[in-house]
Amino acid sequence: MLSKANIKYIRLLQQKKYRQKNRVFIAEGEKIVQEIFTQEQFNIHSIYATAEWEQQNINSLKAHRAQFNLVTTQELGKISQLQKANQVLMLLEYSSAALPTTQELENQWCLVLDQIRDPGNMGTIIRIADWFGIEHIFCSQDCVDAYNPKVVQSTMGSFLRTKVHYIDLQELFEKHKNLPKYGAVLDGQNAFQSNYESAGFLVIGNESRGVSDTIKGMLTHHITIPKYGHAESLNAAIATGILCAAIKK
Amino acid sequence: MLSKANIKYIRLLQQKKYRQKNRVFIAEGEKIVQEIFTQEQFNIHSIYATAEWEQQNINSLKAHRAQFNLVTTQELGKISQLQKANQVLMLLEYSSAALPTTQELENQWCLVLDQIRDPGNMGTIIRIADWFGIEHIFCSQDCVDAYNPKVVQSTMGSFLRTKVHYIDLQELFEKHKNLPKYGAVLDGQNAFQSNYESAGFLVIGNESRGVSDTIKGMLTHHITIPKYGHAESLNAAIATGILCAAIKK
Repeated sequence: MLSKANIKYIRLLQQKKYRQKNRVFIAEGEKIVQEIFTQEQFNIHSIYATAEWEQQNINSLKAHRAQFNLVTTQELGKISQLQKANQVLMLLEYSSAALPTTQELENQWCLVLDQIRDPGNMGTIIRIADWFGIEHIFCSQDCVDAYNPKVVQSTMGSFLRTKVHYIDLQELFEKHKNLPKYGAVLDGQNAFQSNYESAGFLVIGNESRGVSDTIKGMLTHHITIPKYGHAESLNAAIATGILCAAIKK
Repeated sequence: MLSKANIKYIRLLQQKKYRQKNRVFIAEGEKIVQEIFTQEQFNIHSIYATAEWEQQNINSLKAHRAQFNLVTTQELGKISQLQKANQVLMLLEYSSAALPTTQELENQWCLVLDQIRDPGNMGTIIRIADWFGIEHIFCSQDCVDAYNPKVVQSTMGSFLRTKVHYIDLQELFEKHKNLPKYGAVLDGQNAFQSNYESAGFLVIGNESRGVSDTIKGMLTHHITIPKYGHAESLNAAIATGILCAAIKK
């Protein structure tokens, strides 16, 4: 049974300010939910599911002390973000993943997103990071919220295996002066002819404007995906995928 | 002035069957429309624009003998696919781009899309092809329609510089037995350690199921983007971008 107050509460979680106030966000879909049971980054706040789903997942439910709400498929449709509501919707608590230490940063590549605004791009970039084994993603404060339901869905579960930090990028770079900072620009060195160190920051800029001037001024390397045709630019997520492949190869 | 019949006609063009019947599709947005004036692949069928736009583009209009319809911003909103209607909407005639000859195919890379279903992916892939200088894209008959308004918009103008052919892929490959056919699979050779010839087909499969069995059986090379993390797969457009970079580098 789904109360009106419950419906209102969950619907409001589509808005960033309510998510931030309650430190809770929505995850949906059978497959993602199965993965949630096996991870430790996010605590489950509550579960809204059909009787059928409850029966099939009785063991997982016992192992997790989350508030369980039995709902009908019709009720689920009222709170679901999906075109076709699934059997289950979960609310997860915000994670407070610790920032990596300087020593940790000296041994791994991290992504840095400067004003990425499109939820689909953010989700796809998180999925790319997960594919390439990149654990930490630093986002400027004005990036789209990674807990936006559209972002969460489009990561295909990869949000469970990456850590997204919203942070002042200038402060981050000032703190880590000695680490290499590669930025995707339109007039840099061929990304496939650059020699990469084994750790550093890969900076991806805004969908229309690219890397902002302040951050561009702090880069140690400017890299570019060579162009053979006429498109004015590549989508930010596509550029991220290609550059991750370039630094990892 | 926009008649009811006109509104109905343009709205129906959102559906594939009406586009195919009339061999006409929609393109919108100031920037794309400017590029349309400078290309030769598509004939302009008709233009729906505001008085302001007409005044600013009087020379381009004189140079193109298209049917012009003066509309208000409000009227444009009724036929526009964009969230915020622009100043102008164009109907373009389907192009009947000739298939490349065997000799042409021996000298260039082409993309082959096997059951790509998502309009956003199709649009992004067309943009990637344009960036990497790939002129021809062969699509299986059950790929999403490249003249879908969402596809057209998301190519960011690149649909004007690439040629999309819907074709029986099996027949295509049988006809060009001697050309290399590289397919993106999950268990192939590292795409960055493969030696590529200077021409061939790069095959990208369906978003969930990958390359279909029949087509997989006709591939000459299986290639894979090396995985360092845990994501189950990469988005089809991301994979296309990375593999185009790999074959072109």
